[in-house]
Amino acid sequence: MHAEGFLVVLSGPSGAGKNTVMNAIFSSIPNLVYSVSVTTRAPRDGEREGIDYFFRTPEDFSQMVERGELIEWAQFCGNYYGTPRFFVEDMISQGKIVIMDIETLGAAQIRKKMPEAVLVFLLPPSWNDLKHRLLSRAQDSQEVIAERLEKSFEEINKMAEYDYFIINDDLENAAEQLRTIIKAEMSRVSRIKLDEFRTLWQGGKSDNE
Amino acid sequence: MHAEGFLVVLSGPSGAGKNTVMNAIFSSIPNLVYSVSVTTRAPRDGEREGIDYFFRTPEDFSQMVERGELIEWAQFCGNYYGTPRFFVEDMISQGKIVIMDIETLGAAQIRKKMPEAVLVFLLPPSWNDLKHRLLSRAQDSQEVIAERLEKSFEEINKMAEYDYFIINDDLENAAEQLRTIIKAEMSRVSRIKLDEFRTLWQGGKSDNE
Repeated sequence: MHAEGFLVVLSGPSGAGKNTVMNAIFSSIPNLVYSVSVTTRAPRDGEREGIDYFFRTPEDFSQMVERGELIEWAQFCGNYYGTPRFFVEDMISQGKIVIMDIETLGAAQIRKKMPEAVLVFLLPPSWNDLKHRLLSRAQDSQEVIAERLEKSFEEINKMAEYDYFIINDDLENAAEQLRTIIKAEMSRVSRIKLDEFRTLWQGGKSDNE
Repeated sequence: MHAEGFLVVLSGPSGAGKNTVMNAIFSSIPNLVYSVSVTTRAPRDGEREGIDYFFRTPEDFSQMVERGELIEWAQFCGNYYGTPRFFVEDMISQGKIVIMDIETLGAAQIRKKMPEAVLVFLLPPSWNDLKHRLLSRAQDSQEVIAERLEKSFEEINKMAEYDYFIINDDLENAAEQLRTIIKAEMSRVSRIKLDEFRTLWQGGKSDNE
């Protein structure tokens, strides 16, 4: 019945645990795929081209924007991030659920272009907790951390534009709630073609048994 | 965080298994309560006053309508059914999730008066399956069964007005899906008071630690 897939957007402050929570649900939702973003930022240790991000130069990125190859794009902490259109549309038409981790400006563009997308906001348990998480992540400089913190504080105000929120006080609980939201959204009446559905369901009505 | 509860409306053809599916989820959602309807129809074997229905005379029922004591009411197969307003509003303000089993006309009234309600449509796997279920339920007369079947066929067309649909091909799967929908809806951003939430979450921002 579920011919078409849909898009799930996960946002939230840097340090909220978006990647960890996303990674925890892949094994239990077989048709879930990760939308790989394009970025101009430098790879962090362990990040792989085409799996974590498509790493591009600012010049390459602006050519993709000009050609309309990105559904959304935004600048964040001095770097550009964008979502390749072809991949998302292709996966959804194949019935896949595409999940992506983007910030609030990008999510607002998605909401306009794909109103049927599911927008989820992930939060750390508190502001103090967020500070501690970012400070203990030793891979960024103090300035980057300070900038991310201020940005995160502003981002919380964008939560009103999202469909769902999840408080990441425990990885397993947060992952379970994301899984629950995605599974519930699979039952949305607005995602099925009602005429086809009715024809299938009523198949036996003319029987005289 | 979840100060307010919400209303879940379960509809679907007679024989789809609404009561069985509802009963299967009560143990796993602690704050779920059943909205007891008022009806003018005769009690079936085993049905209890105030638990399955409030059984009332047509005269009593029309007085409740006149006094505005019902959120919705409808005639169905010659009998009247309605939802007492006081009970639902009181439970929601206490943070309870109120679930009710009503037909499509009543659900449309709920949608208008309480747009934040969650509307779920439960379907048997097929039209033929529905026929067999109703025929094997020996408690109704042949005429009542024929009338219910025709009514059920019309009701499927109302599915478009619902938020979610569930196909009851297996009781445990259908109950799990209803549970999933209710748990996902608990995470709706639109159900929280964002100002209060932000204040709580940002509690520690002024700390200088």
